[in-house]
Amino acid sequence: MQNFPTLEDIKAAHQRIQPYIHRTPILSSSAINELAECKVFFKCENFQKVGAFKARGAANAVVKLTEEQKKNGVATHSSGNHAAALARAATVAGIKSYIVMPSSAPEIKKKAVKSYGGEIIECEPNLMARETTLNAVVEKTGATFIPPYDYFDVIEGQATCALEMWDEGIDFHTIMAPVGGGGLLGGTALTTKYNSPTTKVIGAEPEGADDAFRSFQSKKLIPMQGPNTIADGLLTSLGILNFEIILEYVDDILTVNDEEIIAAMRLIYERMKIVIEPSCAVPLAALLKNKEHFKDQNVGIILSGGNVDLGKLPF
Amino acid sequence: MQNFPTLEDIKAAHQRIQPYIHRTPILSSSAINELAECKVFFKCENFQKVGAFKARGAANAVVKLTEEQKKNGVATHSSGNHAAALARAATVAGIKSYIVMPSSAPEIKKKAVKSYGGEIIECEPNLMARETTLNAVVEKTGATFIPPYDYFDVIEGQATCALEMWDEGIDFHTIMAPVGGGGLLGGTALTTKYNSPTTKVIGAEPEGADDAFRSFQSKKLIPMQGPNTIADGLLTSLGILNFEIILEYVDDILTVNDEEIIAAMRLIYERMKIVIEPSCAVPLAALLKNKEHFKDQNVGIILSGGNVDLGKLPF
Repeated sequence: MQNFPTLEDIKAAHQRIQPYIHRTPILSSSAINELAECKVFFKCENFQKVGAFKARGAANAVVKLTEEQKKNGVATHSSGNHAAALARAATVAGIKSYIVMPSSAPEIKKKAVKSYGGEIIECEPNLMARETTLNAVVEKTGATFIPPYDYFDVIEGQATCALEMWDEGIDFHTIMAPVGGGGLLGGTALTTKYNSPTTKVIGAEPEGADDAFRSFQSKKLIPMQGPNTIADGLLTSLGILNFEIILEYVDDILTVNDEEIIAAMRLIYERMKIVIEPSCAVPLAALLKNKEHFKDQNVGIILSGGNVDLGKLPF
Repeated sequence: MQNFPTLEDIKAAHQRIQPYIHRTPILSSSAINELAECKVFFKCENFQKVGAFKARGAANAVVKLTEEQKKNGVATHSSGNHAAALARAATVAGIKSYIVMPSSAPEIKKKAVKSYGGEIIECEPNLMARETTLNAVVEKTGATFIPPYDYFDVIEGQATCALEMWDEGIDFHTIMAPVGGGGLLGGTALTTKYNSPTTKVIGAEPEGADDAFRSFQSKKLIPMQGPNTIADGLLTSLGILNFEIILEYVDDILTVNDEEIIAAMRLIYERMKIVIEPSCAVPLAALLKNKEHFKDQNVGIILSGGNVDLGKLPF
């Protein structure tokens, strides 16, 4: 697809967002390697600014705005990491941000958006209200809508995460990422296939929100109805642009149940001593469930974020 | 004191234990720096082998054994990180280890010692039973007793942690460590004063186990009676050798209550996205409680370990 960000686009995005992001470390655990029977390299986006890879895409979209667009700020609807990421990117760039959030969003998420300087506009907790409220905000303020994932500037930003992984000189046989809206998986697939066409790119998804898996199998975009999983970062339906990239560049999508996700999450807390949100554990769970396919490989796994309610850990 | 390990001893220990330990990273958080009004450099021994700095001292003591001593193995009594560290060091060195543990020790700690190859000998859960049982084990096996902290080879090993910190080229105004038995604080004080006599070395201790604080104030070793704190790694009384070093080289000991420890612990989980045990949070709690003394300084804090029961986090 000629519209997809190119490797040059992704490299330029990486340069562009330097002042906005951390270069996150890659960590390993000999205990997990032994268990997985392969070498796992964890890219720690839980250490990223705002605690998630979302800082990359939001920063890229904000910096790419024209001076005219910047005057009126940016807007989005999100109750998750994209909201905080966009609010922060806007504040760092010195522009306004309007974040439409459902009234039911946890207080801690609203606090995070406010602390990064975002203006919150509350709405009823359903998709129609979110879209209507967002449209009203955009009309009133002239702000530019930055969608959370179904948007090339955002995908291009998320693609910079894999760029840093390839920069480390590791010969990855496989790279895995969780898939929700598909911004991270799509970006990861582009960067990876541009760098190494023979490296497998695999998405990992909860059984309780398996629209990407079903869409990938049927080659038709099937929206998610009533998702139900502990991996609360992966509840959204796959985006249209993201699906196009995935069909073209992703090799497989594997699913796991919540029990398997919790076990993998616990393993990462206990063995790696790092805090991750449940979504992050999905790729490791998928790897452990399908060990035979990864034997003796170098496997890169993106740990997407670390924003978890510590009072509600599932163990 | 002429018996104290010298800088050359500590450097030799660091060389000696290379194959046994990780060089752990130093991490920072801009959010914590802002809150603390100084630059805090966290030395992450929670990422150390066996999940704690104890891997260093145990390895050093084991490698320094004579060939004759090695034949009969090593022994200790401990229900904590030293037990796991000694069992692992012995196994890596190809020798036996006998670990006396109170029958009341948590199943997970016993499992850890076994998984590292240690032989567990259970005893009644009191100090007298521990010592009697240890003596019987040593008599029967000829094993060398490696105490958890009151022992120069162990202190020398713990001192290598600060050596790595000084190696990073940071100009520390202050270095802080938690104090239980005093192995880590003593070793840290030696290395730091050898490297930079003007750098302050400060111990941090829970109010509920403040024997080091009271001993330091009165200049007389006061054993701890009935300690009570969430910082379960710091319940032990200060060792004799450790106290000598502390009197000579430590500038101050600060205390904090459990509420302050839990708040600092939560801050580290939420902002740094890493897993630490409660003891680790004691120095940051002490810093935040006494901010005015550290303003605009470079402060090094040793995060001593990450072995925590995730099902029992205090938040």
